Amino acid sequence: MADDRFVLTDGQAHDLAYRYGTPLYIVSESGLRSRIKRWKSAFDSAWPGAEITFASKANSTLAVLAIAHQEGCLIDVASEGELRAALAAGVPASRCHLHGNNKSSAEIRFAVESGIGQIVVDNFEEIEVIAGLPEPRPEIIIRLAPGVEPKTNAKISTGQADTKFGFNINDLSAERALLRCLRLGLNVVGFHCHVGSQLLDPGAQISGGEIIAEFAARMKSSHGFEAKILNVGGGLGVRYTDNDEPMPVEDYCQAIATAVRQALEGSGLTPRLVQEPGRSIIAEAGVTLYRIGVVKTVPIKGGTRTYISVDGGLADNPRPALYGSRYEVRLITANNRPPGPDATFTVSGRHCETDRLFPDVQLPKNAQRGDLLQVLCTGAYNSVMASNYNRYARPATILVRTDGTSEMVQRPETWDEMFARETVPADLA
Amino acid sequence: MADDRFVLTDGQAHDLAYRYGTPLYIVSESGLRSRIKRWKSAFDSAWPGAEITFASKANSTLAVLAIAHQEGCLIDVASEGELRAALAAGVPASRCHLHGNNKSSAEIRFAVESGIGQIVVDNFEEIEVIAGLPEPRPEIIIRLAPGVEPKTNAKISTGQADTKFGFNINDLSAERALLRCLRLGLNVVGFHCHVGSQLLDPGAQISGGEIIAEFAARMKSSHGFEAKILNVGGGLGVRYTDNDEPMPVEDYCQAIATAVRQALEGSGLTPRLVQEPGRSIIAEAGVTLYRIGVVKTVPIKGGTRTYISVDGGLADNPRPALYGSRYEVRLITANNRPPGPDATFTVSGRHCETDRLFPDVQLPKNAQRGDLLQVLCTGAYNSVMASNYNRYARPATILVRTDGTSEMVQRPETWDEMFARETVPADLA
Repeated sequence: MADDRFVLTDGQAHDLAYRYGTPLYIVSESGLRSRIKRWKSAFDSAWPGAEITFASKANSTLAVLAIAHQEGCLIDVASEGELRAALAAGVPASRCHLHGNNKSSAEIRFAVESGIGQIVVDNFEEIEVIAGLPEPRPEIIIRLAPGVEPKTNAKISTGQADTKFGFNINDLSAERALLRCLRLGLNVVGFHCHVGSQLLDPGAQISGGEIIAEFAARMKSSHGFEAKILNVGGGLGVRYTDNDEPMPVEDYCQAIATAVRQALEGSGLTPRLVQEPGRSIIAEAGVTLYRIGVVKTVPIKGGTRTYISVDGGLADNPRPALYGSRYEVRLITANNRPPGPDATFTVSGRHCETDRLFPDVQLPKNAQRGDLLQVLCTGAYNSVMASNYNRYARPATILVRTDGTSEMVQRPETWDEMFARETVPADLA
Repeated sequence: MADDRFVLTDGQAHDLAYRYGTPLYIVSESGLRSRIKRWKSAFDSAWPGAEITFASKANSTLAVLAIAHQEGCLIDVASEGELRAALAAGVPASRCHLHGNNKSSAEIRFAVESGIGQIVVDNFEEIEVIAGLPEPRPEIIIRLAPGVEPKTNAKISTGQADTKFGFNINDLSAERALLRCLRLGLNVVGFHCHVGSQLLDPGAQISGGEIIAEFAARMKSSHGFEAKILNVGGGLGVRYTDNDEPMPVEDYCQAIATAVRQALEGSGLTPRLVQEPGRSIIAEAGVTLYRIGVVKTVPIKGGTRTYISVDGGLADNPRPALYGSRYEVRLITANNRPPGPDATFTVSGRHCETDRLFPDVQLPKNAQRGDLLQVLCTGAYNSVMASNYNRYARPATILVRTDGTSEMVQRPETWDEMFARETVPADLA
């Protein structure tokens, strides 16, 4: 897929860093809108009437949700909090569906009372909870574990048989779940699967789609159940570095649609096809800006290593530590200094542990204190996973509007907020 | 070291879960106080006048800091925020020292204006910043990289030569740093090193202590510089599971003191020895309580696996995902149900990714929805690293007082707080 990641110009970067400080998350409104438009158009061409759901767990900043909604996305929420975020962003609950492997009864009640579009049922216990609710009960989608092994980091792969998510097809749990729902009079509208995340080889997703379509066809022929929705999940990878070459969205949508169409052939089913990309919609529309502080060269076996320390780290981007994720990092020199030829650096965070953010990256040799570093493709799983580790405030998020102006849509914590949750017992103070 | 981890009784666990909900962090005041007393006594026996600093990055809950201060600990802070936490807890700045590989000038100024005890200088740039401050300038400790390779997770090892922290001794950076400070008239009071964390084989720490003591002796003989403080860092491991067998604190303090004493022999130096344990003081004094939700058995190659899902996960304890950390997990059955014989379970979190918290743990076979799980040894690097991932509020922290009563010292976020940092531009709403 062509590289169309959002990148700040040097001028924009200096301007935003000056106005809002660093570290700073920046999201491009036009980058976000154009990705959604591309996804919607690609999927609608491949399967007329298909729908795109934005997986809000990737980035549930209210402004991002509002834009996704304006662009016609449904919103996938994984908790009461994510549903509350969608509502706060002006998304009607009817445009949302609720995921979760361990939804609480209170969470399910809140979703139903809010008028949730669908609940994606994950286990037998949940079926009974929903059956116990007063009418009108919500529409139900049954999450299936298709038993395919995607090629990705084990921590974010979810479609194999050995998973906490969904009903296994092969051991007949899935069929039993459907029959139980039908016997209880629940309004089952379709099936769902999600095989994993950051998949660059989409073979597993295509298999997943095929398997749940075959399952739907079988449920039609065995039990006369007509699935109206097939949600084939998300998971398409993004270009974190040039080693990551995701399949073009258009080809991917065609491949999924073809696999599902073949699996449904002769079944008489004409479901609406749904996908729920998260990362693939928002990751490449976001960047992080850091300011370089200490630059230090240390002896290592056979040579030296130069560490560049930045004013953020593990607390604002835990992905390198969590998943060994690599990122592309670009230097923006201060004072219009021309960048020199490249050398190899290790970029470290400021946190009081190793906090090696970006090992062995190429940056101009004359990188120095006061320069800015722009990290590409941080729109997903950064701000939503941020912590206050070492008592640093979480960074602001800036929305670069389509007209080029910028607006702070999420501010950092104040010191008062940092301590607001705490009390010191009187005899300790 | 004998197992003296804090463990809630079943009755306490039920009571706390009922009163405060789950997930819940719980810290034992008496567990914390007795650990500090043991450390102080062990270290003072090994080196009269020695001091214990609590590394607040491990747990900077204000009540915890207040107790550490009452027990006579110094407080190690790694940022302006951690210093503000210490001040908010009633600790005078003079009892704190400031760490950091990339301290901002503002952070240094704030620390100095607050009256910080010492600044642990990490690099040449910082020396110049401090030299540029108006008198009275703070006391300085120089952080050294002793070039030893500890046996622990690479993400938390910091004492090797290939590190962002401190001044390398072998390439003469350390000596140059001292001479630069002296020439600038800075008040250098000693040296510091910290080789890594969760060390069960303390050989590297003992070597680290020995190496900085040798360095101090050499600086005396070469330059007449008399170190008044040697801070040999922290890093002693704790009993996460019974596979982790930390050396008894008493033996550890003796070993460090002996190594330092030998290295200083004949130097005429009589420095105060300091250690800064964090995890070793607070980890074993804390537990986390979860409530069991979904229990699901799925087919895997050659058999089945049973997942227990709890009402927390990655957001409140990222250590299993970050470091592959293992924990000991205990079941507390509801309704006085007698626990059955053990079976193997995988405990998963509720977050919308794999979120495998505790794989392959032994728990009573009859574990079921509504039971509680108590996770031992979560006092360190849990609440301080917590996020709002999937828009869940961070858990409360309960302090179990020495008289057995409980007090909430950190409450969860409210929904209002969850959204307080955000605004939706008018044209998007």
